[in-house]
Amino acid sequence: MAPTDAALFQMAQKLRRHSLESTAEAGSGHPTSCMSAADLLSVLFFSEMRYDPRDPSGHDADVFVLSKGHAAPLLWAVLKEAGGISEDLLTLRRSDSPLEGHPTPHVPWVRVATGSLGQGLCATAGMAWARRVDGAPGRFFCLMGDGESAEGSVWEAAQFASFHGLDNLCAIVDVNRLGQSGPTMYEHDLAVYEARFRAFGWEAASIDGHDVAAVREAFARARETKGKPFAVIARTLKGKGVSFLEDHENWHGKPVKKGDELQKAVAELGDTNVTIAVEARRYPPITERAPATPTVSPAYQLGQEVATREAYGTALASLAKTAPQVVALDGDTKNSTFSDRFKAVDAHRFAEAYIAEQNMVGAALGMSTEDKIPFASTFACFLTRAYDFIRMAAISKPSHLVLVGSHAGVSIGEDGASQMALEDLAMMRAITGATVLYPSDAVSAERLVETAARTPGIVYIRTSRPKTKVLYANDEPFPVGGSKTLRTSAKDAVTVVAAGVTVPEALEAHDRLAKDGVAIRVIDLYSLKPIDAATLLKAAAETKGFVTVEDHSVCGGVGEAVASVVSGRAPVSILGVREIPRSGQPKELLAMHGLDAAAIVAAVKKLVG
Amino acid sequence: MAPTDAALFQMAQKLRRHSLESTAEAGSGHPTSCMSAADLLSVLFFSEMRYDPRDPSGHDADVFVLSKGHAAPLLWAVLKEAGGISEDLLTLRRSDSPLEGHPTPHVPWVRVATGSLGQGLCATAGMAWARRVDGAPGRFFCLMGDGESAEGSVWEAAQFASFHGLDNLCAIVDVNRLGQSGPTMYEHDLAVYEARFRAFGWEAASIDGHDVAAVREAFARARETKGKPFAVIARTLKGKGVSFLEDHENWHGKPVKKGDELQKAVAELGDTNVTIAVEARRYPPITERAPATPTVSPAYQLGQEVATREAYGTALASLAKTAPQVVALDGDTKNSTFSDRFKAVDAHRFAEAYIAEQNMVGAALGMSTEDKIPFASTFACFLTRAYDFIRMAAISKPSHLVLVGSHAGVSIGEDGASQMALEDLAMMRAITGATVLYPSDAVSAERLVETAARTPGIVYIRTSRPKTKVLYANDEPFPVGGSKTLRTSAKDAVTVVAAGVTVPEALEAHDRLAKDGVAIRVIDLYSLKPIDAATLLKAAAETKGFVTVEDHSVCGGVGEAVASVVSGRAPVSILGVREIPRSGQPKELLAMHGLDAAAIVAAVKKLVG
Repeated sequence: MAPTDAALFQMAQKLRRHSLESTAEAGSGHPTSCMSAADLLSVLFFSEMRYDPRDPSGHDADVFVLSKGHAAPLLWAVLKEAGGISEDLLTLRRSDSPLEGHPTPHVPWVRVATGSLGQGLCATAGMAWARRVDGAPGRFFCLMGDGESAEGSVWEAAQFASFHGLDNLCAIVDVNRLGQSGPTMYEHDLAVYEARFRAFGWEAASIDGHDVAAVREAFARARETKGKPFAVIARTLKGKGVSFLEDHENWHGKPVKKGDELQKAVAELGDTNVTIAVEARRYPPITERAPATPTVSPAYQLGQEVATREAYGTALASLAKTAPQVVALDGDTKNSTFSDRFKAVDAHRFAEAYIAEQNMVGAALGMSTEDKIPFASTFACFLTRAYDFIRMAAISKPSHLVLVGSHAGVSIGEDGASQMALEDLAMMRAITGATVLYPSDAVSAERLVETAARTPGIVYIRTSRPKTKVLYANDEPFPVGGSKTLRTSAKDAVTVVAAGVTVPEALEAHDRLAKDGVAIRVIDLYSLKPIDAATLLKAAAETKGFVTVEDHSVCGGVGEAVASVVSGRAPVSILGVREIPRSGQPKELLAMHGLDAAAIVAAVKKLVG
Repeated sequence: MAPTDAALFQMAQKLRRHSLESTAEAGSGHPTSCMSAADLLSVLFFSEMRYDPRDPSGHDADVFVLSKGHAAPLLWAVLKEAGGISEDLLTLRRSDSPLEGHPTPHVPWVRVATGSLGQGLCATAGMAWARRVDGAPGRFFCLMGDGESAEGSVWEAAQFASFHGLDNLCAIVDVNRLGQSGPTMYEHDLAVYEARFRAFGWEAASIDGHDVAAVREAFARARETKGKPFAVIARTLKGKGVSFLEDHENWHGKPVKKGDELQKAVAELGDTNVTIAVEARRYPPITERAPATPTVSPAYQLGQEVATREAYGTALASLAKTAPQVVALDGDTKNSTFSDRFKAVDAHRFAEAYIAEQNMVGAALGMSTEDKIPFASTFACFLTRAYDFIRMAAISKPSHLVLVGSHAGVSIGEDGASQMALEDLAMMRAITGATVLYPSDAVSAERLVETAARTPGIVYIRTSRPKTKVLYANDEPFPVGGSKTLRTSAKDAVTVVAAGVTVPEALEAHDRLAKDGVAIRVIDLYSLKPIDAATLLKAAAETKGFVTVEDHSVCGGVGEAVASVVSGRAPVSILGVREIPRSGQPKELLAMHGLDAAAIVAAVKKLVG
């Protein structure tokens, strides 16, 4: 039996009460940001959405994403009232409670962590896309704030959703007029938001977000709209329901005080003695293609010259053929990253994300929550654009998320510094729990793509523009956390640790030094994180020291990773980029920045004295 | 005498010819992306803009920014024809030429490096804002691509510009229909672009970008439009003018071949024997307030408890009073970062950037090119959003750009992981040439703000949420590249290197260890980059090893910075965040992640054995 509007309103008041009480108990939090959206969530969770409150895991139900993550207490409240969680709401923000200050997957209903604004719609669009790829039913709702819609990523997601015709997606903008530090740009001018969504290809409706009937009707219109995503622009009041909070400035992120102030606030909400049973509603099951083990089949000759970025494309095409759960995205660079080879195998599972890297990564994260293994690629330097999304993805603890950055370092040559990733290894290593891989030849590139597809969590693969010689047999394994010792002897004086394009330079240095009677050990550090500490420590014991060489900043990459492992045991001479590079030929730039065989030879000689 | 439309068209053909020839000579580059915009730049540089082609330095002229940086050969060509540069265009992309593959300040007409798309409009809006702050005349033109407008940052800039009423700003979108790897989302549907700009508060006109008269007229309309920025949406053809390139796919980023192919292409352009003299035109000089030395006046008592973020606000207010060239921006967090204290002194020089961090950083960079010293602040974690902008800012070599991130690390407490910056030190250290500062108390915070304002280039200051005790006298100097040894004795067994909120923990550990008869040296590493190598090397020689402790990832921050300096001389035990944090109380989280005095004591004891 559908709940009455009166019951939904009363439930909204109860959600407000919970939000006030839990934040007052915690002594921090954002009750007023919860109160503006309470009617919207009451209608969504108790009337509109089809889901089973006992089971957050299914892919046969509607999904809700709270993009305005600071309204977490409202989410916890509505989940509690719907029967989705059993935790005591008054444990909010305590270190022994899953009810964190902003949503995290400690609560299983949370698919993606939020709290950095402007990210939820990207992820939700990715979920909606992935569900559609499976031809499966289900709708996706994303609640945003008005201040939040200043983030450009919102509009990246908006264009992605309309371009891909995601009519299973509904955005709700809680236009409560007040940001953190003052009024928003457009306050209660709903027409601005509606015009923007329409200009970005959406259907939209502007409503009073506290009018339960109007909210229900808007969701019904969204449900019936075909071919386009739908935006509900809701005029609301921050702190709605309590006179001394409602529409008042300086109440952002501030709880009311326990005691009199809280009692006074709660009293204004009236009778909140209501419960609404949520009927378990799911969509009929569909027949999905069973996932399979992602597998590559490298077929190279030793010495053959192939760029690792091209091997990436070949491997990705193999994944497309072997594993239906793999999907790919690219930021209009697919003919350079070679992800176009995936598209050639199965265009249906390829999402062109155009030049909008934040949304690309956010959407990929969303796809992972629909049991996909997403591979998202662009030039490595442009992944810096999505760093906040990568950071939030880590907090989301995705089953899989593979990011692939091509054209790393000065070795791209003539295009110049703007296209050279020199910070990506530092950026990705600093992401807690991320795996960072860096192939030096086509075989290792293919094998690491396979490894990445089989590795849980966030994996970064760095590929290179220039062709490099195939060093490994096609069946060579490349496990996460390993390395390859390419040259070694009983007389090794120094250990040279290289990765990617500097591996051939290290091998060349080995040969030159051998002529001078100096033996060096050469390690291909294809797994930067986790790092092969055992091999490095052995080398520290067996040689006089290390020369590391990387086509990357000297900060945060190969050199510092090695230095932190062998500290106190052996000196580490770090060769890397220390100046802003410029246009030039790849070989010329490697020499200019001291990353070539000659520079390695000089550093080794300095170390042996 | 104004040039005729026929002459402007012929000049456009000549610019096309230069673009074809220079890229053919280089063997790489993007001639077709130049050819679509040639008429637009011919009209701009030879008819519309007021500037002195002999002098790129003035702030009394119009300014052009090439946001679609891959059209650099066109920019070099038009500058050469206008008399702005004397370099041989055929040196394009050579390492001995300033004519790089994408624009960099090696050519003095280039104010901001471009080539990562979607950034030019942010910077140009910042310039336009800064010029307006000075009450000075001059107009700002930014040429973008159509594929580029998929970047959300374009819309962040668009809303910033209209919100601030920047009618001295004109965006030009070169809608040539083709992206790098295929058609753009909207191909030649100009109405989409026009609707979006209008929805974002701009006036706009859609024109044929190859009709010189129409282009002239559109710029005239832009000039006459008051109160709003103006967007010229130009329908163009990629490769315009050469039949086998024009509107053809698979010609992105590809030069024609020298010899027959080039000759055939050039022949199609017809007679390009034209020169147009550019008359030097400047705006009348205005009386500017003379810049002054930025100065702070810290006034604290030793032991007083003040958060470094609050001291930042106090110092920023002092800069507002002492140095008229300082401006401030914030991403709707000014009441948390305390940048609102700057606004309280001079709201005119404060740019509210709302929740759009990419544009905030891009606009700040633009402001620096108008001789401002911009301070841009938000939560440190949200600066990750702008990493690509920071990267490009470094390539732009700004006179000044100060970024300030507050609420760093797990010590923010209950808000949870989404609000905790744990990657910012790694991110900023990897930026070539950046200075990275991290105060531990209010005095160092104020002094480092002063230092930052006086330091050229990009400076990052990391502030903290919790209150910490004042450790330093108000007149203590904090030079870049220094450190403070807070505790030392002849018997120091171990050196503890701390920064920010871990400094008080290290001091507490010192006292606890002293009771056990273990002396430690305590260093406050307030300057992470450049780093005080001399002091660290001295400590390496005088103590058994290092314990570093940072409220940051163990990768790329304090620990690895120290390890890379002292490698081979002393072991370094790195204490930092290794797991995704959660909501909890600050003290509790510092303990949970092994960053408190107890963890330092344990690490020291392990090192002394």
